[in-house]
Amino acid sequence: MKSVLLGCGTVGKGVLEIMDAHPEYGRIAKVLVRNLKKHGDDPRMTDDPEAVFGTENLELVIECMGGLEPAHTYVKRALEAGCHVVTSNKKMLAAYYEELQDLAEKNGCLIRYEACVGGGIPWIHELIRLQRIDEVTAFRGIINGTTNYILSGMTDNNTSFEEALSGAQEAGYAEADPTDDIDGYDARFKVALSAAAGFGVLPAAEEIPCYGIRHISAGDIVWAKEKGRTIKLIGSGKLYDDHVELSVLPVMLKNSSLLAGVASNLNGLSAVSTTLGTSFYIGQGAGRYPTAHAVVQDIIGIGEGERVTEHCYSMPVDNSALIGCWYVRTVHPEVFHDAAEIIDGETVVTREMPFHALQELLAQCNDPDLFLALIEA
Amino acid sequence: MKSVLLGCGTVGKGVLEIMDAHPEYGRIAKVLVRNLKKHGDDPRMTDDPEAVFGTENLELVIECMGGLEPAHTYVKRALEAGCHVVTSNKKMLAAYYEELQDLAEKNGCLIRYEACVGGGIPWIHELIRLQRIDEVTAFRGIINGTTNYILSGMTDNNTSFEEALSGAQEAGYAEADPTDDIDGYDARFKVALSAAAGFGVLPAAEEIPCYGIRHISAGDIVWAKEKGRTIKLIGSGKLYDDHVELSVLPVMLKNSSLLAGVASNLNGLSAVSTTLGTSFYIGQGAGRYPTAHAVVQDIIGIGEGERVTEHCYSMPVDNSALIGCWYVRTVHPEVFHDAAEIIDGETVVTREMPFHALQELLAQCNDPDLFLALIEA
Repeated sequence: MKSVLLGCGTVGKGVLEIMDAHPEYGRIAKVLVRNLKKHGDDPRMTDDPEAVFGTENLELVIECMGGLEPAHTYVKRALEAGCHVVTSNKKMLAAYYEELQDLAEKNGCLIRYEACVGGGIPWIHELIRLQRIDEVTAFRGIINGTTNYILSGMTDNNTSFEEALSGAQEAGYAEADPTDDIDGYDARFKVALSAAAGFGVLPAAEEIPCYGIRHISAGDIVWAKEKGRTIKLIGSGKLYDDHVELSVLPVMLKNSSLLAGVASNLNGLSAVSTTLGTSFYIGQGAGRYPTAHAVVQDIIGIGEGERVTEHCYSMPVDNSALIGCWYVRTVHPEVFHDAAEIIDGETVVTREMPFHALQELLAQCNDPDLFLALIEA
Repeated sequence: MKSVLLGCGTVGKGVLEIMDAHPEYGRIAKVLVRNLKKHGDDPRMTDDPEAVFGTENLELVIECMGGLEPAHTYVKRALEAGCHVVTSNKKMLAAYYEELQDLAEKNGCLIRYEACVGGGIPWIHELIRLQRIDEVTAFRGIINGTTNYILSGMTDNNTSFEEALSGAQEAGYAEADPTDDIDGYDARFKVALSAAAGFGVLPAAEEIPCYGIRHISAGDIVWAKEKGRTIKLIGSGKLYDDHVELSVLPVMLKNSSLLAGVASNLNGLSAVSTTLGTSFYIGQGAGRYPTAHAVVQDIIGIGEGERVTEHCYSMPVDNSALIGCWYVRTVHPEVFHDAAEIIDGETVVTREMPFHALQELLAQCNDPDLFLALIEA
């Protein structure tokens, strides 16, 4: 299969290396890069998109640019030209999923995105494979390696959030602007794509409630430890008859929970399905070669004609069955007076209550530095 | 695809149910059972193998009988007739792997065995899929649900081995004759099949050193707990240039190890491969529907023409690089005098030493009730 590669950064370079080592899966004919000087003398490198899209008999466009534009425009162009697309760009795909899948269907081509969720985990593949037999009814997991690295660092080394974030940035696990990771947006894109692959339901990412870890303190970690718990940022989804429950939330897991043991920058994801029950997958969430591996698996899958049925329906996101006790740290604990089991200084543990009732109290609180976590039952 | 099913016990009945619910994957035309009276009035049931093998246009034989014979003879007959085979019978397959794969190749058909290892884990599938890109260089895990259930019971409830075994038998997780499970033979079959699928190396099961948990005591569990460790029966494999390292051994895992958190009857398996790094899979190790799911995935895979390349080479099993400190409980601790770091009553912790040197001491010991475990470094 003749292909071109858009973007030759961390992931793209890995894809190029793996594909060059496996000519049996086809040849990358051109590589679109931003800065030609950075990429040696490989004659396939170009900074001219017209040269890339003008490749004769082009069948596949591999998009590893990241960001919304021009990635979105290029992917559209590829699909309109009847080319299959493999992308590692979860942000772009979550934003334009419906448009791009429609376009792919109309043009008889596929858009595959294994690398978008849990890079080193065959997650999207397994969600789709399960559905050959089962209905996938739920998923849950640590879906963002950066926050896992930060939280593991805070837990193991008793450091502050700021120190742990700096450490993650130095180690290359967090970007200079860490907003997408620490505010949970990256996890939200991945929850949306997991719902698409697992439930066949297409949520708008903005409809998924999303709380991050930007305001977590060393004290929150200590509180959790004393209770035999570990804090992780958890993305989860449940399929109901006429709606889906989807969220991204910090959760105080019991230490005996499998997810609590998924440390460092790893991702860990579980799926529940009709006959297989709960199956659980752990691996590298990112990194050049694991993510590139996922991209190349998609390329091979397209080449081998792997069946992928992806009929996505619209269904409302409704978290009314999301009920639990909540840990809240706020300068306005008094707001929780009637809803609290415990109020100790700035720390509140609520009685069991629905998420939407909690949200009303959070709005009353109006505390920009508030940290909240679901306490796993 | 027209198929017949051999055996309609726990797994077979699950396969029949799932296939009947999914006619798009073909129809099971006949079911061979031992006792017709047990199986209601389904006209497909028969106790006559000739009626089964006489099915017109038969393409696939699904073997869920268990045991060596007549399963082996029937599978051979199927392959000789040019039928694909899907089997859940690890004992039979590990014993006759080479013969049956050769026969399959000669007759242009496939023999698939996803259900044989980690029923509810897409383990064989992932080992094979990884090799589209990577070399699999190692695997390791909890590969036997019965012993995991027993060890978890002993650890959680401070019970003796005998009590925990009875509990496992009552709960349906151990058979009346538990030998294959508790002496590690079942794990050994699965290590052999994992080596075949992951390394393309075919070991004779008897060459794989295998120690079980028959002689574990409540005191061994207490010792491990005090050291912050959890005992699991671990199967593992490593690929070298000219040999493979394979073993089934009780291991004292650190509690922080992911495998230590894989409790109850679950299985947990990790693979190491070139670009994906370490990926980890946890799920039900057995049970009607998870195992039947695995069988049906193989059936679908054959129907869809999934590529499976299985070139198995013979390579010696050589554990000379398997080095560690060993926990040994024996009535003859004096044998370990020169090799021990600690001797405390009947409990010995050896200095770091190769497995083959340990084996010489074990032979000198000649203690039929000895328990040994590798202490994870």
